[in-house]
Amino acid sequence: MATWYNRGMQSSTSADIRTIRLGFLGFGTVGEGTYRMLVDNADEVFAKTSAKFEVVRVGVRDLTKVRGVAAEFITDDLRSVVLDPSIDVVLELMGGEEPAGEMVQLALEQGKHVVTANKELIAKHGSRLIGKAKSRGLDLHFEAAVGGGIPVVQPLKHQLAGNDVIKMMGILNGTTNFILSKMEAEGADFGEVLAEAQRLGYAEADPSADVDGFDTMYKISILAAICFGKQIPLEDVHREGIRSVSAADMKYAKQFGYKIKLLGICEEIGEGEVMVRVHPTFVPLGHQLANVNGVYNAVWLHGDFVGDLMFSGRGAGADPTASAVVGDLIDVARNMVAGGSGSAIPYGVGMRVTSIKELESRYYVRFEVEDQPGTLGDIATSFSRYQVGLAQMEMVTKVGGKGEIAFMTHVCQEGNFRLALEAVASLGCVSRLEGWFRVEE
Amino acid sequence: MATWYNRGMQSSTSADIRTIRLGFLGFGTVGEGTYRMLVDNADEVFAKTSAKFEVVRVGVRDLTKVRGVAAEFITDDLRSVVLDPSIDVVLELMGGEEPAGEMVQLALEQGKHVVTANKELIAKHGSRLIGKAKSRGLDLHFEAAVGGGIPVVQPLKHQLAGNDVIKMMGILNGTTNFILSKMEAEGADFGEVLAEAQRLGYAEADPSADVDGFDTMYKISILAAICFGKQIPLEDVHREGIRSVSAADMKYAKQFGYKIKLLGICEEIGEGEVMVRVHPTFVPLGHQLANVNGVYNAVWLHGDFVGDLMFSGRGAGADPTASAVVGDLIDVARNMVAGGSGSAIPYGVGMRVTSIKELESRYYVRFEVEDQPGTLGDIATSFSRYQVGLAQMEMVTKVGGKGEIAFMTHVCQEGNFRLALEAVASLGCVSRLEGWFRVEE
Repeated sequence: MATWYNRGMQSSTSADIRTIRLGFLGFGTVGEGTYRMLVDNADEVFAKTSAKFEVVRVGVRDLTKVRGVAAEFITDDLRSVVLDPSIDVVLELMGGEEPAGEMVQLALEQGKHVVTANKELIAKHGSRLIGKAKSRGLDLHFEAAVGGGIPVVQPLKHQLAGNDVIKMMGILNGTTNFILSKMEAEGADFGEVLAEAQRLGYAEADPSADVDGFDTMYKISILAAICFGKQIPLEDVHREGIRSVSAADMKYAKQFGYKIKLLGICEEIGEGEVMVRVHPTFVPLGHQLANVNGVYNAVWLHGDFVGDLMFSGRGAGADPTASAVVGDLIDVARNMVAGGSGSAIPYGVGMRVTSIKELESRYYVRFEVEDQPGTLGDIATSFSRYQVGLAQMEMVTKVGGKGEIAFMTHVCQEGNFRLALEAVASLGCVSRLEGWFRVEE
Repeated sequence: MATWYNRGMQSSTSADIRTIRLGFLGFGTVGEGTYRMLVDNADEVFAKTSAKFEVVRVGVRDLTKVRGVAAEFITDDLRSVVLDPSIDVVLELMGGEEPAGEMVQLALEQGKHVVTANKELIAKHGSRLIGKAKSRGLDLHFEAAVGGGIPVVQPLKHQLAGNDVIKMMGILNGTTNFILSKMEAEGADFGEVLAEAQRLGYAEADPSADVDGFDTMYKISILAAICFGKQIPLEDVHREGIRSVSAADMKYAKQFGYKIKLLGICEEIGEGEVMVRVHPTFVPLGHQLANVNGVYNAVWLHGDFVGDLMFSGRGAGADPTASAVVGDLIDVARNMVAGGSGSAIPYGVGMRVTSIKELESRYYVRFEVEDQPGTLGDIATSFSRYQVGLAQMEMVTKVGGKGEIAFMTHVCQEGNFRLALEAVASLGCVSRLEGWFRVEE
């Protein structure tokens, strides 16, 4: 059995030391990082818990891969990990909905505390699993599921819990932020940068979870659920990825004084009702989120008492994620030593999610047009028919009698804006709707 | 008795509801803000605790002031608050070392949980008080003592606890950050801006606690103590305020690509040894801390696993501070309902603090000189005699045959740098040492 503790620590007698036995489910990047942190920082962890950790079993799907842990601990029988009666805490670091969900449920039923980094699982089944943990007095922690190493889940549960969170916006996916930052810096288009990110290992071979916004949707939904005490029905979350962002839009964003970021946004609409949305967003250069670049993540929020707040840091990777997992594990250990549990947050069901058509926002839109007199007038007239006011305009002449025209609107309702887009796109002087994005103030 | 709870909440039966009785010590800005938040956000607080709060007694020093709470609760007999056997939790929001310290100790001896916003008390007596709370299984929380509403104390205790925190830097005092931001924006000198800040109520009539760095010293020392598990002996902390910062230094800082910020800095030097210092610092424009302006606070840190992390928000004021106090109170309530305590962090004594003379840093320095040939050569020669290399220089001619010369050095040892300063200041061609500051990379 791998054990580590007590290196250089003299302050506790052995009677004080509680041994906590761990079972890993998954031993990829995050699993190995967590194991390494527990070994490398054994002194820090011991000083803060008076607990000794022992890895009892490591469940993996592929026994043939070489892992940074002795082969004797490794099994591909995941159930044997969660059913092992000697294990106190299960670390679920596999990701994905199944078999992770079944294993977490089984672990809780066996009376084991669970620490997970699994955003999809919590976003989809958080209410059920947290309810199960709560009813049995067990801890179910998931700090690593959102924002990697950035403490945000637990601060929302604890230090900020007295606030009414009016609005929350997050850059929650490092891959897309890396791509957008690179597109902006190099004036490159999405496709080229994605290919490069894939070569460098920053993007998966199948990039959909990141670039189509699923990852961000899971994360903002978890944060919203913590703030409002109810799971967010994902089917009601508006989700757009970054495939539609072009080099041309980046250029206009800069001219208008914005950067384009993929944001997860949650706003309180009323009692028990929120709007949750994920889409590329024009963020003003003066906003703190505009300066979060590369693989960094950030969560910005406005609470009624705390005011504006921002957390930023490394949102992914073995080490930052391990930091969050080990932080959760330290809390579990403290609770095991001191008694009590940390899961007592409300996380019910029945949250109402407002349709994005009711959004009031400013918009950016770009058209290819016929470069001829009257075009601007026709477009402006069509917009005004749907109560969409235009605030700024940039127009350039292109070859072949064509032009490109980009607008920033005043605040208007999304439903109206979409109707206006249809009307404008059908004008004879408009060749094509090139793209449009929502704009944050 | 003032009670509030259960507005619109149907989910708990009365059998689930725990009544938690509060005694306030101090009812100034923070006390009133906390009371108001508990009333205004009763639904949020109840949803997260299933607990009902009742204010039993409010201890104040001056009975004649009008307060936002019914007179029947108010007393100037502070001991009657901490000795009241019906009170579960004491909120110490008076500030200052005494009588707050005696009252907190007495409250803990009476078996009461304590939430405090008192940085001076925790910085000076944290080890003793936390030890007392721990030995009795009581909570002693102090999130509001550092960074106002920004969650930083508890994240360091919990989510980041597995990290070895290599370096931490904070803008921890809103008054000085407001003054420095205004000096920079307006090119004004310290004295004028201080006077204006006092007129506006942003600075106290006696501004020493802020502008001489005491407030920042208490706060960075608390954060350091949490990271390293031992109280910081304040007499070993290097502390400089912002009175020495001039409009001229601001101008050179900008030319060299920096902003001047009052930072509290803590660095790990070795096992059980840190350097803790408070001084105006040249911060590179590209660093996140350089963009934290006005009354905003921020804590930046680098942990071995989590990497770079930053928290920023409103560091003072009734509402943000109330947010932190109520967050702590929610944790106390949860522990009272679920059992367990949240104070189980190591906070011992015997921390070694390295002298700032051993600091390795870059420096900025400005002299008034004779505007004559040979001056630069003489100065450079003197610096090099003490192993201080010069990296950048700006020189301007002034009236009357004088000149002004500003340098940025390479990294050197502070002890050597100070010896070099003496040597340079005594040169015939140097009229005066105008000022010098440490520079962060």
